Amino acid sequence: MSDTPEEMTRPLGDLEPEEFRRRGYQVIDWIADYLEGQEGMPVLSEVAPGEVHGQLPADGPEEGEAWEEMMRDFENIILPGITHWNHPRFFAYFSITGSAPGILAETLSAALNVNGMLWRTSPSATELEQLVLDWLAQWLGLPSGLFGIITDTASISSLCALTAAREAIPDLEIRELGLAGRPEVPRLRLYTSDQAHSSVEKAALLLGIGHRGVRKIPSDSAYKMNVEALRQALAEDRNEGWLPFAVVATAGTTSTTSVDPLDEIATLCERESLWLHVDAAYAGAAAMLPERRSLFSGWDRADSVVMNPHKWLFTPIDCSALYTRRPQVLKQAFSLVPEYLRSDVASRTAEAQQDYSPVDLMDYGIQLGRRFRALKLWLVFRTYGRRGLQARLRHHIEMAEELAGWIDEHPDFERLAPTPFSTVCFRYRAGAGPDSGDGTSLGDVADDEWAGFNEDLLEAINSSGRTFLSHTRLRGRFALRLPLGNIRTTAADVRETWDLIRRKAAALNG
Amino acid sequence: MSDTPEEMTRPLGDLEPEEFRRRGYQVIDWIADYLEGQEGMPVLSEVAPGEVHGQLPADGPEEGEAWEEMMRDFENIILPGITHWNHPRFFAYFSITGSAPGILAETLSAALNVNGMLWRTSPSATELEQLVLDWLAQWLGLPSGLFGIITDTASISSLCALTAAREAIPDLEIRELGLAGRPEVPRLRLYTSDQAHSSVEKAALLLGIGHRGVRKIPSDSAYKMNVEALRQALAEDRNEGWLPFAVVATAGTTSTTSVDPLDEIATLCERESLWLHVDAAYAGAAAMLPERRSLFSGWDRADSVVMNPHKWLFTPIDCSALYTRRPQVLKQAFSLVPEYLRSDVASRTAEAQQDYSPVDLMDYGIQLGRRFRALKLWLVFRTYGRRGLQARLRHHIEMAEELAGWIDEHPDFERLAPTPFSTVCFRYRAGAGPDSGDGTSLGDVADDEWAGFNEDLLEAINSSGRTFLSHTRLRGRFALRLPLGNIRTTAADVRETWDLIRRKAAALNG
Repeated sequence: MSDTPEEMTRPLGDLEPEEFRRRGYQVIDWIADYLEGQEGMPVLSEVAPGEVHGQLPADGPEEGEAWEEMMRDFENIILPGITHWNHPRFFAYFSITGSAPGILAETLSAALNVNGMLWRTSPSATELEQLVLDWLAQWLGLPSGLFGIITDTASISSLCALTAAREAIPDLEIRELGLAGRPEVPRLRLYTSDQAHSSVEKAALLLGIGHRGVRKIPSDSAYKMNVEALRQALAEDRNEGWLPFAVVATAGTTSTTSVDPLDEIATLCERESLWLHVDAAYAGAAAMLPERRSLFSGWDRADSVVMNPHKWLFTPIDCSALYTRRPQVLKQAFSLVPEYLRSDVASRTAEAQQDYSPVDLMDYGIQLGRRFRALKLWLVFRTYGRRGLQARLRHHIEMAEELAGWIDEHPDFERLAPTPFSTVCFRYRAGAGPDSGDGTSLGDVADDEWAGFNEDLLEAINSSGRTFLSHTRLRGRFALRLPLGNIRTTAADVRETWDLIRRKAAALNG
Repeated sequence: MSDTPEEMTRPLGDLEPEEFRRRGYQVIDWIADYLEGQEGMPVLSEVAPGEVHGQLPADGPEEGEAWEEMMRDFENIILPGITHWNHPRFFAYFSITGSAPGILAETLSAALNVNGMLWRTSPSATELEQLVLDWLAQWLGLPSGLFGIITDTASISSLCALTAAREAIPDLEIRELGLAGRPEVPRLRLYTSDQAHSSVEKAALLLGIGHRGVRKIPSDSAYKMNVEALRQALAEDRNEGWLPFAVVATAGTTSTTSVDPLDEIATLCERESLWLHVDAAYAGAAAMLPERRSLFSGWDRADSVVMNPHKWLFTPIDCSALYTRRPQVLKQAFSLVPEYLRSDVASRTAEAQQDYSPVDLMDYGIQLGRRFRALKLWLVFRTYGRRGLQARLRHHIEMAEELAGWIDEHPDFERLAPTPFSTVCFRYRAGAGPDSGDGTSLGDVADDEWAGFNEDLLEAINSSGRTFLSHTRLRGRFALRLPLGNIRTTAADVRETWDLIRRKAAALNG
């Protein structure tokens, strides 16, 4: 056995420490410059399909290459193909945002390379995850004693929650016997509004509930779930032999960030013995603000709640927080411990300090592999503190309200939905008139005569490279959508973007 | 609207660039020292349950804190609670391993903070993912033209594959109608060996197949699936009204790294029209070595294959590669495009270069949020090149073979399974005798009289702090399990560990 077989192109092992240090400093320098220097870069990448792919070799390298070459390709080939999610004028989808302490935490986490599947495979990963999720729950005004777990995305958090909801159905033994080929199992249904995120439906497909197992409840003029319609749907479905088992309410829908009436829904779910899952992936962060807290009233009665620090809490993607007051059901749905993963976690409770009960987090979710994501929450929270985070959230909301005001005052623009948080939905319509409306008085349209203009407007805005907005469709109307969430966005960025929107609209009008 | 509300504890925005640079250098320095300086650290963390938790405040900070304080806590409180997965003598589970270029790539990726859900949300993320997975497929000897996608873990890759397998069942319209309350849907079954990973069962539970929908086929004396038993099970089940729909074969089982007879299984699956998924999460990397390639013969005929670069290809967790020759089925299972995610990707094919067809990767998986993981594969592959990666894999296999030889020669130790790759399963048994055996001649035992001794031995080894091994149970016997996969592990580490094992066994014999 030799450490230096002849065919090798460099010594075995990893980079030498001095080489790592040199490259590491370069990477840090590059990032420091990048974060400051995005101003001149097009926010939405302008490359043609295949342009990045076509510049790179179709075959992987036989021998190791020089670092300088890789970095050159990174700058010259990869970077032009990046849509800059961290750009202060990235105003599309939910403008998820990282921050400097989050970047450094990811670096440390990659160096430790921990898989926190079991308590013992890194006690700090498990214990810090529980601790920072307790901090966050306190800050959000959630009840104490909730069980929290970090997953990668809200897609997974909601899938976990709905798997638990299915597991909570009494008597059917779904974990043991499944759903297929069992005439004694009724058709299962879950309920959510027509504004819910697509991940709810995706979860239902996975769980074997099918499209038809998701009943979409109509929303009202402010895009909130119509609870009376939900009540009727439940009665109707029970009558027809369906077995309702869960309701997904949304606090901050993707299109308009509307909030379903959580209190009323919670009361109904309690009465009907339905699992209530609250999807607060984006807006949940705003519950840190006492003045917004009332919007979330009722989520404390949910069986499970998801909110994503990687959306609006300055934490690099990915990081989603799932809370439940029924961890035993989650565990019952997911725990599977083969011999090679058996550890003595339960028996160690005896030696535990401070009434701490160790848990193996792999038992509460889908993935066995678990990155050490708590580290970034911990460093972001400590860098800014609760008040620093609140100030940034408030700033985003203030800027969104100011933009909403400009739109309302403008004779040719109108808002298409209320703006409860930091996301503004609007469109151009000549002669819309200055108003104080928020779109709630608009009825459905069958044919949106302004769709073409606004699609062209969006294209003109985005192809300027100066900003990137996305869109949605509201009551038949094509709507531009502008969310604020980036830690570096300033009032000047919003003003510049509003000027650009007006200029592009004027240009389209010839 | 003011940028400086009074209640703020620091200016809005992120860290200043110079502050980021200063902290960044410190983090790089810390990592350089850490990677070299793990020698003195206990591999398996020695903290008591709650020890980390108890040293940290129960409430999150009101105000931002000083960086130096956080780093002090990181070193003094977090680090002792870390089990060092990157330690060269971490020999537990699969000793997943990162590398320096992987760490730097994660840093860049966190700074870009890209969500690669759509082609346009960062063309480089999608195109680089497709490119590096093509490189990898070539290196592994997989057929050209496979569709590849990166997920976080094999748990998710296998869940995606089995969702597609369920979707491929003709006529049942499971996506639309689900499985519940449908007397016309037969009981569904998938087949895997009794050595398969727990993630296969977890996927079945999620998919509504249930425990009973997973039939575990017995393995032979070398822990490979018995194909004749599979054939019989299929006939029996079809006879009894089950609908078989998938087989999961394993190339590198978790307990012993045995490889199921893929060619035979592929032939059977083709004849029986079953989806064949190959779980090569750990061992797949070894297909880069021409001299090991024959072990994988037949995986080129699978419908889907998973292998994890984060296990044995020097890429920090998480990174799993899923390949399929039936991407349309994957898409059919998962694609759900709400208005707010509609993009013009299909229409852009016209402007595409080099026959490249852009895809939106969100359509092929569960998670909408997708980190830019391709970057780390690209930098790791380019840093070491194919030959550099091969040399490291060979070195691990050579060291494992040498250890296996020492065990075989020793009068009081015996191997409990063949060692096809870099993982050795063995135990202490006084008077086992020097042999050239590999455990395949051992029959089942009802009562393992050596279990207690070997459990104590494992405990003594791990509590030394010098190394960390895990265990499994093979034909009723408690087995120690030692996998090699760390880029920094040297022959000296393996020798030291073998010396330690023998010393601890001698001490136990007292």
